[in-house]
Amino acid sequence: VVDTLAERAALVALDWGSTSLRAYVLDEAGATLAERSSPHGVFRLPAGGFAAAFDDLLSAWQPLPGGLPILACGMVGSAQGWAQAPYVDCPATAADVSRAIVKVGASAGRTLHIVPGVAQRIGTPDVMRGEETQVIGAIADAPAGEALVTLPGTHSKWVTVEGGRIVAFDTWMTGELFDLLGRHSSIGKVGAGDASTMEVRELAFDRGVCDALAGAPVARLLFTARSRVLLGDLAAGQALDYLSGLLIGDELRAAPAVPNHLIVGAADLCARYQRACDLAGRPRPARVAHATTRGLFLLAASAGLL
Amino acid sequence: VVDTLAERAALVALDWGSTSLRAYVLDEAGATLAERSSPHGVFRLPAGGFAAAFDDLLSAWQPLPGGLPILACGMVGSAQGWAQAPYVDCPATAADVSRAIVKVGASAGRTLHIVPGVAQRIGTPDVMRGEETQVIGAIADAPAGEALVTLPGTHSKWVTVEGGRIVAFDTWMTGELFDLLGRHSSIGKVGAGDASTMEVRELAFDRGVCDALAGAPVARLLFTARSRVLLGDLAAGQALDYLSGLLIGDELRAAPAVPNHLIVGAADLCARYQRACDLAGRPRPARVAHATTRGLFLLAASAGLL
Repeated sequence: VVDTLAERAALVALDWGSTSLRAYVLDEAGATLAERSSPHGVFRLPAGGFAAAFDDLLSAWQPLPGGLPILACGMVGSAQGWAQAPYVDCPATAADVSRAIVKVGASAGRTLHIVPGVAQRIGTPDVMRGEETQVIGAIADAPAGEALVTLPGTHSKWVTVEGGRIVAFDTWMTGELFDLLGRHSSIGKVGAGDASTMEVRELAFDRGVCDALAGAPVARLLFTARSRVLLGDLAAGQALDYLSGLLIGDELRAAPAVPNHLIVGAADLCARYQRACDLAGRPRPARVAHATTRGLFLLAASAGLL
Repeated sequence: VVDTLAERAALVALDWGSTSLRAYVLDEAGATLAERSSPHGVFRLPAGGFAAAFDDLLSAWQPLPGGLPILACGMVGSAQGWAQAPYVDCPATAADVSRAIVKVGASAGRTLHIVPGVAQRIGTPDVMRGEETQVIGAIADAPAGEALVTLPGTHSKWVTVEGGRIVAFDTWMTGELFDLLGRHSSIGKVGAGDASTMEVRELAFDRGVCDALAGAPVARLLFTARSRVLLGDLAAGQALDYLSGLLIGDELRAAPAVPNHLIVGAADLCARYQRACDLAGRPRPARVAHATTRGLFLLAASAGLL
């Protein structure tokens, strides 16, 4: 198996974020032959730093050919990363992004290539790093390169793509707000210690989505996750699902109607957004799997690394 | 002095919140003769609990007459308080609130009277506890009992008063969000370690207010406090003031225009809201001082305690 992997490998693709590192060996068609992950994100490095995390992950696959190209995306290219890959300004095509790939020397004479992030300097200032690769992967099959791509997460992104170019995007602090409010706030306190059924929790999510879609400012609605529990309008175990619904509904309220809406992320999280789209009376976004590896493969091809 | 205090005292007024306890001795006209405070809020009680915190604070003033009425407002009347004072539903007058005052036995045969909170069950469910007393104090001089009363804080309240009745209110998690985001979020990280001048920070606050007033959803704008720093559009030391401006501007955007707008709270915090009103082109709310003691005095009178 090891011999076959070494023979068929065309690219090592790394998704190197803040809190985790995932590596994929791709074949010449971009299909995944093997994958591994480690907790060695940019902010969770082992002794020995980036090089040690890199060696540790790749050593399981040795012997891989020394000249095998290696391409990484994510926070590894930030100011806190292994090497800084400065933002490319949008509008940006895959070719624009691939031209700005930076190199850093790794162990055993290997070179790590790092994908830059994308910055929006016109309109609302915004940045992404890692999502540009997922978007490039997600739109590979999009007709005329037109799409709205939603990437839910700690910092949810809504990315508008026209003619194969990332033209604009918005970041929402949905995941981070949910996490902060759930762990540290007065909402988290009331929401603890109740074991509501999944069905009851889903109803609370739906109510949250609908209340946010109705248009009140979300910073005003957040407190109602607490006051509804105090007044018996929600069970304690519903508070966090209601909160999740509020935050996702608020994102969706601002979203334009488009013919080609895609979504990239973990299946359970994407399902929440798809459900919220049902409630908003808009078509469900189609979930695109393997967007990161596909994007890295396309960028490697564009950069002449394959 | 002690003799004079005991002779002139007409009411002991307690502002007993989550994180602090303040006590005032008021004369028969409601003027403050003496005040003390302790850190013994409802969630920070000493050994011995409520009774010990109460005895500790009052002991500095002994001998006060045993029959002196004692009236408290705030979280001391919540489910986690000394005794629960169930919410009065709005619309509620001072008389409605005073009729629902509850009693609890304290040391040395004293009785502590506790002001109930107010609940809004029609429209957006909401609750207040402590602010009802401040509002009652603030509107004592309002013509025809008409006012919009803003009470900035951890949970900012905007309270509509008509004909002397609290008819509706909205709670915003402004203070809690600011604290959570400043201490735990990715915005707090970029905002640390820069010593911008006060003038530069005030400019950032103004920009935040104006950006929120322009109407984009605040959960989308929050992330820009980080991306603006990453892109050089804000200095790191401006991020938190920009964030403060966003949150306050978002509150203000939703506020109705009224002839009599009052504000109750710490002078520096009220000044931020007054500045934001300048930027929004609306009249500055008039700050009302001593609203808590005035409210407690009026409620004590209404309850026949004086």
